[in-house]
Amino acid sequence: MTRSKVSPDGRIPDRDVAAKLVIIMVGLPARGKSYITKKIQRYLSWQQHNTRIFNVGNRRRIAAGVLLPPAQNGQSPLANGHSDTPLQEAASILLNGGRDIRIEEPTALDLNSPTGTDGEQKMDQSAKFFDPKNETASRIREQVALDTLDELIDYLLIGNGSVGILDATNSTLHRRQLLVDRIKEREPKLGILFIESICNDQSLLEANMRLKLSGPDYKNKDPVKSLEDFKARVKAYESAYEPIGEYEEKHDLQYIQIIDVGRKIVHHRLRGFLASGIASYLTTFNLSPRQIWITRHGQSLDNVAGKLGGDSDLTERGHYYGMALYNFITAKRKEWVVEQENKIARASFPPQPGDHTPPYPEFNQDLEEKNFCVWTSMLKRSTETAEYFEADDDYDVKAWEMLNELNAGTFEGMTYEEIATKHPDEYQKRQHDKLQYIYPGVGGEGYLQVINRLRDMVREVERVADHVLIISHRSVCRVLMAYFMDLTREDIADLDVPLGMLFAIHPKPYGIEFHAYRYNEPQGWFDEVLDYKPQKTQDRNN
Amino acid sequence: MTRSKVSPDGRIPDRDVAAKLVIIMVGLPARGKSYITKKIQRYLSWQQHNTRIFNVGNRRRIAAGVLLPPAQNGQSPLANGHSDTPLQEAASILLNGGRDIRIEEPTALDLNSPTGTDGEQKMDQSAKFFDPKNETASRIREQVALDTLDELIDYLLIGNGSVGILDATNSTLHRRQLLVDRIKEREPKLGILFIESICNDQSLLEANMRLKLSGPDYKNKDPVKSLEDFKARVKAYESAYEPIGEYEEKHDLQYIQIIDVGRKIVHHRLRGFLASGIASYLTTFNLSPRQIWITRHGQSLDNVAGKLGGDSDLTERGHYYGMALYNFITAKRKEWVVEQENKIARASFPPQPGDHTPPYPEFNQDLEEKNFCVWTSMLKRSTETAEYFEADDDYDVKAWEMLNELNAGTFEGMTYEEIATKHPDEYQKRQHDKLQYIYPGVGGEGYLQVINRLRDMVREVERVADHVLIISHRSVCRVLMAYFMDLTREDIADLDVPLGMLFAIHPKPYGIEFHAYRYNEPQGWFDEVLDYKPQKTQDRNN
Repeated sequence: MTRSKVSPDGRIPDRDVAAKLVIIMVGLPARGKSYITKKIQRYLSWQQHNTRIFNVGNRRRIAAGVLLPPAQNGQSPLANGHSDTPLQEAASILLNGGRDIRIEEPTALDLNSPTGTDGEQKMDQSAKFFDPKNETASRIREQVALDTLDELIDYLLIGNGSVGILDATNSTLHRRQLLVDRIKEREPKLGILFIESICNDQSLLEANMRLKLSGPDYKNKDPVKSLEDFKARVKAYESAYEPIGEYEEKHDLQYIQIIDVGRKIVHHRLRGFLASGIASYLTTFNLSPRQIWITRHGQSLDNVAGKLGGDSDLTERGHYYGMALYNFITAKRKEWVVEQENKIARASFPPQPGDHTPPYPEFNQDLEEKNFCVWTSMLKRSTETAEYFEADDDYDVKAWEMLNELNAGTFEGMTYEEIATKHPDEYQKRQHDKLQYIYPGVGGEGYLQVINRLRDMVREVERVADHVLIISHRSVCRVLMAYFMDLTREDIADLDVPLGMLFAIHPKPYGIEFHAYRYNEPQGWFDEVLDYKPQKTQDRNN
Repeated sequence: MTRSKVSPDGRIPDRDVAAKLVIIMVGLPARGKSYITKKIQRYLSWQQHNTRIFNVGNRRRIAAGVLLPPAQNGQSPLANGHSDTPLQEAASILLNGGRDIRIEEPTALDLNSPTGTDGEQKMDQSAKFFDPKNETASRIREQVALDTLDELIDYLLIGNGSVGILDATNSTLHRRQLLVDRIKEREPKLGILFIESICNDQSLLEANMRLKLSGPDYKNKDPVKSLEDFKARVKAYESAYEPIGEYEEKHDLQYIQIIDVGRKIVHHRLRGFLASGIASYLTTFNLSPRQIWITRHGQSLDNVAGKLGGDSDLTERGHYYGMALYNFITAKRKEWVVEQENKIARASFPPQPGDHTPPYPEFNQDLEEKNFCVWTSMLKRSTETAEYFEADDDYDVKAWEMLNELNAGTFEGMTYEEIATKHPDEYQKRQHDKLQYIYPGVGGEGYLQVINRLRDMVREVERVADHVLIISHRSVCRVLMAYFMDLTREDIADLDVPLGMLFAIHPKPYGIEFHAYRYNEPQGWFDEVLDYKPQKTQDRNN
């Protein structure tokens, strides 16, 4: 029986093996598999479940004696930030460029392909290696898949992992059985979840291929030739493909099937809170092109006084911020419609180089009519910042409890200086670990509580196809940004989000396009901050 | 585009037609359709969405000139508690025994059947009426279905309804098209969601039929004969049955398919927060036999002082309560295993009269090994009450933020007398409408906030197959009991939940079995309160 034990820091305790999960991806190339994989990893990591992607293709290339350049590799259990030995550390840097979990898996096409790609040829692996009739090679490929799985299981059983995702096509029943047998052999209690992405709709497939063609693999190549090449590769796979079904159902295996980019979703035998949570998450999201804006409220009276929390009104400057925000967003909203329409007008298939047409034409209907939601917290400084939107019928304003500022418990209304003087021990505790610190008193919260209560907010943002502007507070903006920017556990509580910063997130089928703007108070407008990178706050209190 | 506007009282505003939902049930008899219908209605009502079931069979019987006795009828829009005219009121009493939304729909089998049942024969409807070749009758049946749908749409567009559930087999494509056309004709923006229950597994079907045979329809009849009768009825339906599929997908209609009691679930094209929420809810629940216990913490120091909220320790009496609770629950847990084993041993198919075998044998594996979760809030009086469970490895103790007491904001730590003296206006506001009242100050909550934050808790309770004991606080217990006991909006905030009451809920495939126990302090034990009915608190403050 799955236990839902979670340790005080929000993580699954090491001893609770039954709550840990192996996710096995299944699907042909160009089915959005790697998009789904990354999205799950980002969501689970944000929810404080240690999650890592294990890519079989990368491992195979290593097995074949080819070490990849840092920009082109996946994760290995050696590669976490907690390396114990200098050797492990060196390996980590070599394999992953020294970064932790968050490293991008290769954006290259799935290289499990029997025909190989340019990239693979460069890596000096002969086409013979991928020939299905080459039995030695086939045995090596199988061995590599099992070795990667073993790394994944080590990560769960020996490392501090909660979820490992095996990213490969895993498109035959034989392969999937092999994987299940190995997992059961090593630890029968481990949860197993198959996630399959299927695409039957021809126009969606074309859209996915368009994506691939404008992606790094084919970026500067002849689109017509590239398309032919790609189609040939997919065809080779299709002949051997055995979708998830009868066998998995007979053996009571958990699976989620995503058909035609979420148009239809099948859940089978889901048990355990991780599998259920992933299922809910995958059910909600949509690929509709739109904008998500995040900012803090305008200046409040308590901001001026340097007091924590509270529920004070805006200052005059704060009201002006609300007006500037309204004017700027309204202009950007109109700009966006024009841009989208231009993109659609320029679209062709196969795409011309540099063609960034939004890939799912069906989502481009009614661009003009797209709703715009403005979500505030229940606190006055947030709702007052939305006053100009409130007055305009073209915006839907709604206040959410979830978006309230982190509750400072008995320290509400105090300044950091007061806390340092009156409660030096609490002050030190917070300085020492802001992420885990919980303010004393009834209702007092910490960052982990805020992460927890914003889970539903993130699902809601992912679910709606409307534009959304969130006007909230420092800690909430940090946690939301941590989700969208894939920040590590360590960075969440220190992210610099001063008053007046405005962030724009455009969800794209291949990830996120991000823009940052800074309030230009004299002009009553916003200036784009080019090449914005998340920064640490300079003020140790905030 | 679906808007997620919710008015301040948690309800969908009348003007927001696009957020309202018509649910059309689809499925053969004995597929758990009415179980699902009731469950959705209870969940949505609890979440403050006005929801009503419209039963086509009942309406047809009325159309045929037969008025049902009060115990055997469904809902009609006339039958809400807000009847405007004496005539409507009379009709309401006549049709529904005067009760509001919560009235049980008929537990009788779906009477849409072409063969009719004993019940229908009594009602003097000739078998000819159900003959598929009888075209007049067929037209009348269609008209009745449309009339019922019209009532449902009136409830959404004219009444204050948010969700209407059309409960019938709706097993042909023709019928479903007819319904969709009518809805679009009346209000094209209304959301439509099909929910189909399918059962392919023979042992599950037998289990469902076993349920029907021990139900009110066949209670004192020969089980062998009843089973034959029932199987014949189902067969007649099966021949004409057209499951949801191609047509609905081609027309982009939203649907949820529940296959083999949730083993497999298909979502298609879900949009809108109601449909998504229903999907998440239906995904989680299981039919595993188990016990859910709810109680408050033992006596705390603040209880003695009459202070609101706070985070005080238990008194000595409070610690004794924790010990008694541990002893009693441990005894009950052992009793339960013996009972279940006896039931399984006595089982036969077809069942003997009075045989209440748990219907899903697969869920009865590992009775002994079933986990027992003890969930507390993060407050000391709750965690301290669980201290004896904490010391026993056979219990999984976990503290949840969600289970914390309603936050009284700036009134935390005050007595009601103090509030009445110092803040008479706030005191009066709360007396006037406890459900909508929100305590002042940052973090201050009201019942609607508690209902909102317990949504995930209820899903979690429904999801786990383990036993659960929840040790929480007055307002949280009230809101949880409101869900399980299907209390009306008006009753939630006044439910009497004194210290020392212990409630046991056994989820059953046909509803809930409920027991209440009262702490016997001198004996250190609990006495069952027979025929317990939810009561209003006598203390106007609590």
